[in-house]
Amino acid sequence: MARILTGIQSTGTPHLGNVLGAIRPAIELAQDTQDESFLFIADLHSLTQIKDGSELRANTYAAAAAWLACGLDTDRTVFYRQSDVPQCTELAWYLSCFFPYNRLTLAHSFKDKSNRLEDVNAGLFSYPMLMAADILAYDANEVPVGKDQLQHLEMARDVAGRINHKVGREILIEPEARTNDATMYVPGTDGAKMSKSKGNLLDPFADEKTLKKVINKQIVTDATPLEEPKDPESSVVYKIYKLVASPEEANAMASKLLAGGYGWGHAKKDLLGALVDGFSQERDTFNRYMADLPALDAELAKGADKARTVANATVNRLRSAFGY
Amino acid sequence: MARILTGIQSTGTPHLGNVLGAIRPAIELAQDTQDESFLFIADLHSLTQIKDGSELRANTYAAAAAWLACGLDTDRTVFYRQSDVPQCTELAWYLSCFFPYNRLTLAHSFKDKSNRLEDVNAGLFSYPMLMAADILAYDANEVPVGKDQLQHLEMARDVAGRINHKVGREILIEPEARTNDATMYVPGTDGAKMSKSKGNLLDPFADEKTLKKVINKQIVTDATPLEEPKDPESSVVYKIYKLVASPEEANAMASKLLAGGYGWGHAKKDLLGALVDGFSQERDTFNRYMADLPALDAELAKGADKARTVANATVNRLRSAFGY
Repeated sequence: MARILTGIQSTGTPHLGNVLGAIRPAIELAQDTQDESFLFIADLHSLTQIKDGSELRANTYAAAAAWLACGLDTDRTVFYRQSDVPQCTELAWYLSCFFPYNRLTLAHSFKDKSNRLEDVNAGLFSYPMLMAADILAYDANEVPVGKDQLQHLEMARDVAGRINHKVGREILIEPEARTNDATMYVPGTDGAKMSKSKGNLLDPFADEKTLKKVINKQIVTDATPLEEPKDPESSVVYKIYKLVASPEEANAMASKLLAGGYGWGHAKKDLLGALVDGFSQERDTFNRYMADLPALDAELAKGADKARTVANATVNRLRSAFGY
Repeated sequence: MARILTGIQSTGTPHLGNVLGAIRPAIELAQDTQDESFLFIADLHSLTQIKDGSELRANTYAAAAAWLACGLDTDRTVFYRQSDVPQCTELAWYLSCFFPYNRLTLAHSFKDKSNRLEDVNAGLFSYPMLMAADILAYDANEVPVGKDQLQHLEMARDVAGRINHKVGREILIEPEARTNDATMYVPGTDGAKMSKSKGNLLDPFADEKTLKKVINKQIVTDATPLEEPKDPESSVVYKIYKLVASPEEANAMASKLLAGGYGWGHAKKDLLGALVDGFSQERDTFNRYMADLPALDAELAKGADKARTVANATVNRLRSAFGY
């Protein structure tokens, strides 16, 4: 039985792109497999970018509530906050003593972030060691990663190999990357890929009034008059609708757009309906958790206990080998 | 009442230069003051250079035994191993998220070490953040530092100031450096300053046979014949003797050297006697501890308990402010 580990960024509240592109596929994967899943919210990593305690805490809760709302089963998946297992910071120190400084300077993501962000702190630079610790602490066999994280996974494998070589036995498991090439493209309100940095978000957990406002004001449409035929495939409204409605509903909207006499206002109203109805159960669960943070804390604590036990065992193996 | 914090490097076993130049003065300082002393063996730092677990563990024990042998009172001084308080690694992560990467690249000690050492690992680079954590975790008011560590202390002050500014209150104490300009110059067997990297060491805890061999074979002397007068002040034997004998004994040796008829062999024999007798009590205590590691562990555990309590309180203050 393999152990699969997934880290979730929590630098913003989850949006439709996260839900469709990451949360649902990961939960389906966890349900379909006999493998063991560890899934954590990378809230220590968030501190590299978010310095406001209330904002960071709110993001962590929102991420946790979103995963639970989408059906994450905490009896099957070890679900926890990174910060609840500070052993990973101790492990990160050990790893950094075995990893060449020069290799760390070659990290693409640091170069990218240091060009893009105003706050280029030392944490951003040493982050790959914390990420490696997050993986290696849990003896993970597989890590689903996007292309942008592949180099970090390689660093984790590399430093584990160096330590195993030095210690003379397999004291750390060298994890394999599981790249998912076919990640779903979820367009944002402007048609570009939905992402926090572009501010083109739709929040499926928002209430109808908020969603209506965002859909009506932000989703771009062309100036084709109501009565004329419209091309579904070049329409942002339709592209999003297709991802959240059933195939039959999507076909129906496409036919109406092609036929004419069906305007963007109608299409937006149908999209709103699909979002409001399609996520009603998730929205209820999300809101229930956000209104009952102790319940959310309790779910996360359950995973943290299990995660700490595994991480402690790993750290203790290393402490003993390193002379502590 | 101020809290004074001192870190002890443990990359080698303690030698005469450490005992006379650092250990004794620090213990005298701790005895003379109403201030509170925290003193730790920086064994997490040692991992940047020592990858052999047995060697690292032996160095830690030797350092602890040397301090206890020289009279450190663990009822007055909180004495502990850095690795027994892994909270400092968690704190180091928090600090690194608030410290500019560019400032870290300016650290002199990293430049120096990366020129000198073969193993230039990421731990060497990020070490100033761990050192800052070691200081800030304990709410230290003063840190005795040599000139080479002054920049690291400045970084600790700087990052504490940045976090205090961001949080809007004094959540971390900004420590003051206590520079001791008048550190004792202890010559090694070759006359240069005694230091591990030069290999010119005298070990006051070694047995008579070992000491005799080192003194006779390694301490340099000139070729002046036995019967001729000799200049004490240009003699390494005399310079070391003066540091370990009483003023009267030192004067007596100086007179004999100046008078002639007293050879280097005589002087070396007197130095051997002074080292063997002068450190007999320390040697006994040192050997007793090294033969009873559980007793040594017990002394260190006492301090670790106190240190962990303080470090936990600091880390929890920050966790709460940062959203954990």
